[in-house]
Amino acid sequence: MYGYELAFKDLGIDTQQEHVVYMRADCHVCKSEGFSALTRIKVWDQQKSIVASLNVIETDILSPGEISLSKGARETLQVSEGALLAVSHLSPVESMKYVRAKIFGNQLPTAAYRAIMQDLVQGNYSNVDIAAFITGCAVQMSVQEIVGLTQAMIGVGEKITWDFPLVVDKHSVGGLPGNRTTPIVVAIVAAYGLPIPKTSSRAITSPAGTADTLGTLTRVNLDIEEIKQVVQKEGGCFAWGGAVKLSPADDVLIRVERALDIDSEGQLIASVLSKKVSVGATHVVIDVPVGETAKIRSHKNAERLKTHLEQVARALGLKLEVLLTDGTQPVGRGIGPALEAMDVLAVLQNDPAAPQDLKEKALVFAGCLLELAGKEPAGNGIKVAQAILESGEAYQKFKAICLAQGGFTVPNYAPFCHEVTAAQAGTIIRIDNRRLSKVAKLAGAPEDTMAGVLFAAPLGKTVAPGDLLFTIFSESEGELAYALEYVNNEKDIITIA
Amino acid sequence: MYGYELAFKDLGIDTQQEHVVYMRADCHVCKSEGFSALTRIKVWDQQKSIVASLNVIETDILSPGEISLSKGARETLQVSEGALLAVSHLSPVESMKYVRAKIFGNQLPTAAYRAIMQDLVQGNYSNVDIAAFITGCAVQMSVQEIVGLTQAMIGVGEKITWDFPLVVDKHSVGGLPGNRTTPIVVAIVAAYGLPIPKTSSRAITSPAGTADTLGTLTRVNLDIEEIKQVVQKEGGCFAWGGAVKLSPADDVLIRVERALDIDSEGQLIASVLSKKVSVGATHVVIDVPVGETAKIRSHKNAERLKTHLEQVARALGLKLEVLLTDGTQPVGRGIGPALEAMDVLAVLQNDPAAPQDLKEKALVFAGCLLELAGKEPAGNGIKVAQAILESGEAYQKFKAICLAQGGFTVPNYAPFCHEVTAAQAGTIIRIDNRRLSKVAKLAGAPEDTMAGVLFAAPLGKTVAPGDLLFTIFSESEGELAYALEYVNNEKDIITIA
Repeated sequence: MYGYELAFKDLGIDTQQEHVVYMRADCHVCKSEGFSALTRIKVWDQQKSIVASLNVIETDILSPGEISLSKGARETLQVSEGALLAVSHLSPVESMKYVRAKIFGNQLPTAAYRAIMQDLVQGNYSNVDIAAFITGCAVQMSVQEIVGLTQAMIGVGEKITWDFPLVVDKHSVGGLPGNRTTPIVVAIVAAYGLPIPKTSSRAITSPAGTADTLGTLTRVNLDIEEIKQVVQKEGGCFAWGGAVKLSPADDVLIRVERALDIDSEGQLIASVLSKKVSVGATHVVIDVPVGETAKIRSHKNAERLKTHLEQVARALGLKLEVLLTDGTQPVGRGIGPALEAMDVLAVLQNDPAAPQDLKEKALVFAGCLLELAGKEPAGNGIKVAQAILESGEAYQKFKAICLAQGGFTVPNYAPFCHEVTAAQAGTIIRIDNRRLSKVAKLAGAPEDTMAGVLFAAPLGKTVAPGDLLFTIFSESEGELAYALEYVNNEKDIITIA
Repeated sequence: MYGYELAFKDLGIDTQQEHVVYMRADCHVCKSEGFSALTRIKVWDQQKSIVASLNVIETDILSPGEISLSKGARETLQVSEGALLAVSHLSPVESMKYVRAKIFGNQLPTAAYRAIMQDLVQGNYSNVDIAAFITGCAVQMSVQEIVGLTQAMIGVGEKITWDFPLVVDKHSVGGLPGNRTTPIVVAIVAAYGLPIPKTSSRAITSPAGTADTLGTLTRVNLDIEEIKQVVQKEGGCFAWGGAVKLSPADDVLIRVERALDIDSEGQLIASVLSKKVSVGATHVVIDVPVGETAKIRSHKNAERLKTHLEQVARALGLKLEVLLTDGTQPVGRGIGPALEAMDVLAVLQNDPAAPQDLKEKALVFAGCLLELAGKEPAGNGIKVAQAILESGEAYQKFKAICLAQGGFTVPNYAPFCHEVTAAQAGTIIRIDNRRLSKVAKLAGAPEDTMAGVLFAAPLGKTVAPGDLLFTIFSESEGELAYALEYVNNEKDIITIA
């Protein structure tokens, strides 16, 4: 029906996942088909097609007869310079009718969520379509719908299966600087003998994700085969979830959620639990930090989230425990990949100077997993976990996992640093987690792995003028100055009274 | 704070209103600021700034030190080749907090809608942000909120004021092919002596908007000063609304609504009534065609829309009458700019072959306006309107308005045509307005003004095999073939039983 008559030229434009096709304004195909900017069209090579939004080119960066694609579109179609492409009108994306139904307040069956997720991961939705779906799901999602969405997200990803009778996992909904309990929990639980194939994310808006922190200690971009090998050998792993396609729908949704700065409960639950099911977990503990400047700001919201997480997990056949934890201040001292990794190592090495809050929180979660899995009686889990940690077994296991993943290295401090001190005497009464994280990001975290903040002013501490509140680390003088400028302009990142 | 150190180079990319900034992947500003694709940033010239989404360039279409902007962004900043620009982090767009509140089901005060509309027309919202706003408004908008949104939309546009004691206007919510009553109504009402400063839109998804049709007869891109002059002189005008900034917010919203194929009641009401208030109208009649394949599909929905239109109009101080009309088939014969214009001329010229359904409907609306304005007693308006039309006064007024706008021309038929005939004997029992419109669009309407469909098969007509159903007109053989291919593939655009 359509001739393959436009030659691909790479303009190398990264539009961040949304597929864009570039065609000249005077292109006869554009004109005869009635295409104009923002039109969604199909682009074909000989084998397959993608859906893309049209951007019209009015200069000679494309010559007559040429066509270009955004980076993601080019990668999906796998075309190379000069390849002949065809374009055609797009039949409406069928599943958008469900999105429209959701927008107008209807409950959707699981089959509708499946259709939506399939189109989503195939790139058939524009960013505008995705935004409409996310917004439509922000309110009025029943537990049954969240189950449907979760199952649909699982359905479009890969799933790891294990021969173990049970597989444990741990997750934090995040929003708290530091709080890097995961590596410690995995080491203890794996040393105990429970399989824990942990996948983690890199930072999206925070100064470090668990995968960023572990990336300073070992290699984390394992594929599924490697995850299986490491876990078979050592009982646990530290993998970057982005390297495996366990929840490709989530990758797409999160990007637009971040752009909108929306975090709806239904999407959060589906995002977390779909990954747990996909990784093959059967018993899961979830950390929900609650605090004014954490992600979950009130106990009322935390309790509702806990109830809904439990209900959806039950429907999925997951054993789940949700712990509401203190979200008023950072856990540990480091904020940023390497600085957090140092905290983790200090705890594992039983360094007397290790942050005790991080150690205690890790033990609570490790103990909880041992009990949830039915391996230890109630109240005994934490003691067993403590014994494994303090005996050095957890540290041995940690190193063994790292070596199985490809190596174990210890990070260094960044070359530039500046100490931020108290301007007055008093007691630390409030910490703004969000702005403290921002300081670490401005200093270069997570891209500069050694950059970040070393926190030294926990709530309740008494300080004199000139006492250390936190140290900013950075890999360049410019970034240090940039972070400092922010600190000097902002009031009460740490409140003393 | 930031140096103006990047030189503008025009790549001429039209992204359709959403502002995009293009920077090289290795740009040191990108790297030091931590920008990545899809980041929303501020772009400054010496005078002002805009907000744009970043697309990252990985080839040499930009040289080191260069920056580019999408067409709309370039036009807004008014920069020329080589101009130095600066970029900086974007403070969060304040009014997005209201959008998020709306997404989560809250009612918004008018002040919130004002803040949203201001950011919207300044280009501070991405398409994703706009989609979220539209979706959030799709359900649960109270009448009070619709009033707030309408007032906010009026507030960010220009407003025409008149010295007349009353000003009338007419609108159709659309969705029906043909149905070009407006030029006839304007001519009659203006001939009667009531001021009617009519602004109309061009087609967005239909084969013709009123402005497209009138554009084949006269010049329609009047500015506000010209609108005032023509109306002062002749009592009425036919202006293209897109040439005046009466509702710039609506222009932005409609684009994303079309992409999503969402038409929410609140947005529809705000869109229509904001334009009526901005044009200075005091008495308005609205045509709501109701039919299975019209925009409003059920009488229940039509009645609700009517009630809400009336409530919002009352709050705005507009006298409004809503007429629910037959939306089961085209009104008139022509579908496409020139073909509709020929229908309009035939009615105005009292041609015995003129489509009587179009004439009758135009008389109903003209009569309604005369009564609504309190100039004629109930039941008398239509008779007076008929007298004005049949005496030729309306046609004289029509030509006078056209001449005041810059000229009066009569369109021609397109050079290529094909007759589509009945395959069987029977009675016409159903017409698919949407697919019939699509045939006209595939034939080239509205860009090719002479293209379209001449409809000859009204409901209830008895046909024999080979009798004419409709004629397709097009300006090129290719488009004619394309429209015909569609007709041959589709069943029951017109159903005979």
